[in-house]
Formats: sequence, structure tokens, C-alpha cells
Amino acid sequence: MDLLALFADSHDTVDYKAGDSIFNEQQAGDVMYVVLQGMVELRMQDKLLDLVKPGQIFGELALIDAMQRSATAVAKQNCHLAWLDEDKFLELVHETPRFSLYVMKVLAQRLRKMNTLLYG
Amino acid sequence: MDLLALFADSHDTVDYKAGDSIFNEQQAGDVMYVVLQGMVELRMQDKLLDLVKPGQIFGELALIDAMQRSATAVAKQNCHLAWLDEDKFLELVHETPRFSLYVMKVLAQRLRKMNTLLYG
Repeated sequence: MDLLALFADSHDTVDYKAGDSIFNEQQAGDVMYVVLQGMVELRMQDKLLDLVKPGQIFGELALIDAMQRSATAVAKQNCHLAWLDEDKFLELVHETPRFSLYVMKVLAQRLRKMNTLLYG
Repeated sequence: MDLLALFADSHDTVDYKAGDSIFNEQQAGDVMYVVLQGMVELRMQDKLLDLVKPGQIFGELALIDAMQRSATAVAKQNCHLAWLDEDKFLELVHETPRFSLYVMKVLAQRLRKMNTLLYG
């Protein structure tokens, strides 16, 4: 799914400089992000979980289950991000089934990765 | 989301006796299941991952990312299950956004559980 195209005209964007913290583990969270430019590191207890590249999402967990952030997100480069709150997220799920499938695939990928880390 | 109601009239059902293996880790998989009656154990390398109860799903990962089964599913009690293949799954994602949200929540829950197992 081409999220760069879907969010190209978004006005809900935010910029971070390399090294900036975007959110921290255990924080409450009510938005998720789409990387438009740059790269974001996801860390859990100082272990690198994932590198999020342009066209990819992060922070979706806190929107889906309304719990605290499971990871820390740090801008690895200067970043230009689109953000979406719960209303926009639900609108996309209702109107763009391919977006739902993409979010499921991201979650599945993270789960497979965890499985490998846990059980080898 | 009330999956029991959604699948009450499904003709695509299958029964397993307590102790039966439904699928095994590393197998290819092209269906997911909704538990209508009974209970299913999900195991990974002989560790108990989850107990799936009536109204809940399992086997969704292999449908989402078309990879092999990440866990073994065993009927813990006599079970009556509805199954859905990729076509039916995609139909539901397109027509029933609440189903998409439910699948995301299940994945999020499994991911949070994994996080806890991995990082405490």
C-alpha cells in the first residue's frame, strides 16, 4: 500500500531533528505516524526493535488498543511525519480496506519478529 | 465484536475432538478459525501462548502474511469451529470494518503479550 501517496497532501505533519525523541515507552499515546521523510528507530529497553522508513507506520499499537506506548521512538535522521489520531484512523479503516490490511501486515511482521526473538 | 453472531449461520464449520491437533507450527496455512464452541490451545515450542475461547479467532497470521503457521493449535475440549479462507477474510475486511479492528486488536494483544514475555 502506497502510504506516501495517501498522505502526500496531509496537513497534519510534524518534523523532528535527528536524535529527537518522538515518544517514550510507557507514555500514553493517542496518535500514530506515517514516515514521509527520514527514518525512525523503535527501541524497547534500549534494544533496537525496528527501523521505520518512508511510507511505513509506527505508533499504531497505542491507537488500536488504547494502551501505553510499547516502545520508544527516536528520529534517526531529520524526519517529516504525518500523524493521525483515532478519528482519522477509524475513518481510514472504514473507507480504505487496504489500509486495514496494511496495518495487519505490519502487526503480523512485528509478531513474527518477536516470535523469532523469543523462540528462535 | 460479536463473532458468534456473525458466524452463527456459517456452513463452513469443522469439529475437532479434545486433544486433536488442528494445525502445527511451520505448516503452510490458508484458513483462519472462529471458535464457536469449545476451547483451543495455542502453543509455541510446547509453551502455552494462548487459550482461544468461543467468539475468538486463531490462525489469522498465516492469512495476513501468507507465511507458515507460527504456532500449534490443539483442541483443548471438543470444538466446533467456523473457518474462513483468504477470499472470505478479504470480503470481511472490505465489508465489515469492525472485523478489521477486531483482528488488529487480537494482533495487538498477542504483540503486547510477546513484549512482556521478552522484556518483562
